[in-house]
Amino acid sequence: MTPESVDIRKLAQNVEALVDRHEEDRIPELLDGVHPADIAEISERLDAEDQKALFENLDVEVASDVLPEIYEDAQEDLLEHLEAEQLSGILGEMEDDEIVDLLDGLEVAKQEKILALFDPEDDLNLRRLLEYPEDTAGGRMTTSFIALHQDQTVRDAIRAIRAEVEEAEDYNFIYVVDSAKRLVGLVSMVDLILHKRGTTLKTIMEPDPIRVTTDQDQEDVANIAKKYNLPVVPVVDAAGRLVGRITLDDILEVLAEEAAEDISFLAGTHEDEEAHRSMIRIAGVRLPWLVLGLFGEILAAMVMSRFESTLETILSLAFFIPVIIALGGSTGMQSTAIVIRDLATGEITLRDTLPRVLREIGIGIINGIACGLLIMLVAYLWQGNPRLGVVIGLAMLAVVVIASSVGAIVPLLLKRFNVDPAIATGPFVTTSNDVLGIFIYLGLATLFMRWL
Amino acid sequence: MTPESVDIRKLAQNVEALVDRHEEDRIPELLDGVHPADIAEISERLDAEDQKALFENLDVEVASDVLPEIYEDAQEDLLEHLEAEQLSGILGEMEDDEIVDLLDGLEVAKQEKILALFDPEDDLNLRRLLEYPEDTAGGRMTTSFIALHQDQTVRDAIRAIRAEVEEAEDYNFIYVVDSAKRLVGLVSMVDLILHKRGTTLKTIMEPDPIRVTTDQDQEDVANIAKKYNLPVVPVVDAAGRLVGRITLDDILEVLAEEAAEDISFLAGTHEDEEAHRSMIRIAGVRLPWLVLGLFGEILAAMVMSRFESTLETILSLAFFIPVIIALGGSTGMQSTAIVIRDLATGEITLRDTLPRVLREIGIGIINGIACGLLIMLVAYLWQGNPRLGVVIGLAMLAVVVIASSVGAIVPLLLKRFNVDPAIATGPFVTTSNDVLGIFIYLGLATLFMRWL
Repeated sequence: MTPESVDIRKLAQNVEALVDRHEEDRIPELLDGVHPADIAEISERLDAEDQKALFENLDVEVASDVLPEIYEDAQEDLLEHLEAEQLSGILGEMEDDEIVDLLDGLEVAKQEKILALFDPEDDLNLRRLLEYPEDTAGGRMTTSFIALHQDQTVRDAIRAIRAEVEEAEDYNFIYVVDSAKRLVGLVSMVDLILHKRGTTLKTIMEPDPIRVTTDQDQEDVANIAKKYNLPVVPVVDAAGRLVGRITLDDILEVLAEEAAEDISFLAGTHEDEEAHRSMIRIAGVRLPWLVLGLFGEILAAMVMSRFESTLETILSLAFFIPVIIALGGSTGMQSTAIVIRDLATGEITLRDTLPRVLREIGIGIINGIACGLLIMLVAYLWQGNPRLGVVIGLAMLAVVVIASSVGAIVPLLLKRFNVDPAIATGPFVTTSNDVLGIFIYLGLATLFMRWL
Repeated sequence: MTPESVDIRKLAQNVEALVDRHEEDRIPELLDGVHPADIAEISERLDAEDQKALFENLDVEVASDVLPEIYEDAQEDLLEHLEAEQLSGILGEMEDDEIVDLLDGLEVAKQEKILALFDPEDDLNLRRLLEYPEDTAGGRMTTSFIALHQDQTVRDAIRAIRAEVEEAEDYNFIYVVDSAKRLVGLVSMVDLILHKRGTTLKTIMEPDPIRVTTDQDQEDVANIAKKYNLPVVPVVDAAGRLVGRITLDDILEVLAEEAAEDISFLAGTHEDEEAHRSMIRIAGVRLPWLVLGLFGEILAAMVMSRFESTLETILSLAFFIPVIIALGGSTGMQSTAIVIRDLATGEITLRDTLPRVLREIGIGIINGIACGLLIMLVAYLWQGNPRLGVVIGLAMLAVVVIASSVGAIVPLLLKRFNVDPAIATGPFVTTSNDVLGIFIYLGLATLFMRWL
C-alpha cells in the first residue's frame, strides 16, 4: 500500500452515505484493509453521530487501534456514548498506556465508571499508572514488556515471547533483569535468532542499556530516544527496577507535541487548539494572548503620549516608530526562537547561560550596527536631516541590542525557575520590546531635541 | 546507564587536557563505554585541532558512529584533514546513506577524492545514491536490507540474517519480494522466532506493507512514519521494486529538521544557523530578514507620512499606531503558525484551502470584535473622545480580520505553487500587515476627520 492510495475524504463520504441509508453494518466491509491511522482520519471528518455509528460497527480490535488516534474531544464523546459492552470490548484490546491516556482527560466520576469495566487486577494496574503525572515517563509508559533473568537462556526467551505475543506485537527487545528485578541488559530479537537455544542471556545481552526513570519529563524521554535513536525506551523506578517501557508512538507524539508547543507559544496560540473544532472556542484560546498584547501596546501608547511635545515639534519622528519597534520585535523573536529551540533539543543547558546570552548580545551588536547605519542613511535621504538620521540610527542600535538580550534572557530565566521556556512567548517578548523601544527612541530624540 | 550520568563538559575538558599533554593515545581509554552520541556532543565542544586529535585516536568503529552525528562544518573539516587511511577505515564502517549525507554537502572535487577511497562496486552504489535529490526518500535511504522471495522459508530467512548481520544491527524486519523484486510483504523478527523453520514467508508475512517511492519528499516520508508509527520505512522505485529503507535515525532527524525549520522561518532566522558557531556568520544569516523587515517598515513610515496633516490635527492618533500594528501582527502570526503547522503535519491538505481560510477569517472576526470593543473602551476612557474610540475600534476590527486572512492565505498560496510554506515567514506576514494596518487605521481616521 502506498499511503496516497487511500482517499480519506471519499471514504468519509461513503461512511456518511451508509449511515444515512441505515446500512451501518456495511462499514466494516467498506473499511476492510484500511489502516487504523487512516480510519482515525476518516472518523475526524464525521460528525458525532456518524462517528458513534462508525465505532459501534467496527470490529473491536480495529476500533481499539483507532480510538487512541483521534481528537481528545471526540474520544470523550465516544467514552460517554458507546454501550458499556462495546466499550469494554474495545478497551480490553488496548495497551494500558493508551487507556491511561484516555482516562487522564476525564473527570474522576467518569474515570470511575470506565475503571469499573475492568477486572480487579487490571483496574489496580491502571490506577497505579494514573497516579503518575501525565507528562512524565511513568504517565506515558506501558507496563507490558518481556523481562527475563540474566541466567535464563535463549530457549526461555523464545518461550516467553510465545506466551506474550498474542497481546502486543511491537516487541523488538526483551529486557534482562537481575534477581532484584533491576534492569541490567537488553537482547534484540535478532540476537535470539542468531544464538543457540542454550545460551544464557547474560552472555549475549547489551549490558547497562539506556533507561529513564518514572519521574522524568516526557520531553527528556523523547530527546533521549532521539539522541540515541531508540525506538523503545525502558523505564525504571527509583530503585532501578524495570517497571515499563515507552514505545515509538509515544516518542513520536511527544516530539511532535513539543515542537507544536514551541511554534504555538512563539505565535501566541496554544497547541491544544487543534483538539477543538468550533471557531468560537479556538478564538477563545487565542484571545488571551491578543489581549495581553493589547494591554502591553497600550503601555507603549502611554509612553508615546509622555513625549507628546517632542512629537508635536518634530512629527516626522513618529513615522519611524513602526521601523524601530518592528526591528526590536524581530530581533527579540530571533533570539527567543533560537534559545527556545536549543533548550528544547538539549543543545544548550543552563550552565551555558552566560556565554549564550553574551553571544546573542554580540549578534545584536553586529546587526544593530548594520541596521542602524542603514536607517540612518534612509532617514537622511528621505527627511534631508542628517542629525535626525544619527538619532534614529543610535536608537536602532540600542533597541536591537536590548531586544536581543531580552529575547535570550527571558526564556533562560524561566527555565532556571522551572517554567517551560516556551511560554516566554514571542508575544510577551515582542510587546516588552515595543514598550522599551518607543521609550528609548523618543527618549533619545528628546535628549537631542535642541540639536535636531 | 542513565543519560544524566555522562558529564559531557567534564569529558571534553579531559580530552583537551590529554591533547595538551600529548597523551592523545589515552583518549580511547577515557571514552571507553561512552555512547557515540555522547562522544559527538563532546567533540562539538572541542576546537578543530582537538577534534582532529579525537578522531585520529578513536577506534574506527566508534569514529564511524560519531562522525554522522556532528555539525556539518566539523564534518567537512575532518573529511579534509584526516589521513586517507584513517578516513577510509571510518567510512568503511558507515552505512551508505550516512556516507551520502556526508558527501552531499561537498564540492564535486572533494567528493571525487573521497569516492576514490572505495572499491569500484561500493563507489558505483554511492554514485547512484548521490543522484537522488538530498531531501527525497532516495537521498535518505540506505540500500542495506534483507529481502527474500515469498516462497523462501523461515530457515532461509535466518540464514540470510546470519550472513548479513555483521554489517548492520538495526534489523527489525526482513522484506518479502516477488520474482520481479517488487515489495509484497514484511516479516518481523518475532514472526521468525514464532514459526517453524519450514514455513514459507508468504504465509506469515504482513502483506502489502506501507512503502514510499524514491522521489517522495523526506517530509512526507517522516510524516508517514509518524502517522503509522513505523521505525523503518521501505523504499521502492517507480516499478514497485524494493531499493532501500529509511531508518529511525533519518526519520527522527527529518521530523526535528522540519519542526526547527518552521520555528526558524516564523522567527526570521534560519535552521542552518546551528551549523555555524561564529557570531558574525550567525548575524549574517539573520540580517537579511531584518533588512527585509526594515524596508517593509520604511514603507509603513511612508504610508504614515502621507497622513501627516491628519496626524498634525489629532496627534493622539499616533499613540494607537503601536496597538493597531501589534494586534495585526499577532493575529497574522497566529493564523500563519497554525496553517504552517497543520500543513507540515498533514492535518490539512490543499483541498481544504477554502474552508481553512474561511475558518481563520471567522476566528479573526470574533477576535477582531473583542479587541475592537476593548480598544474602543480604552481610547474613550483615556482620551475622553468616544468618536475617536469608535474609529480606533473599527480600524482594529478591520486590521485583525485582514491580518488573519493574509496570515492564512499566504502559506496556502505558497504551498499551491510548491514553495515551502514555512518561508511564508512570520516576518513577511508581520511586515505586510503593519503596512496594511497603518493604511487602514489612518485612512479611516482621515475619512471620519470632520466627525472626530
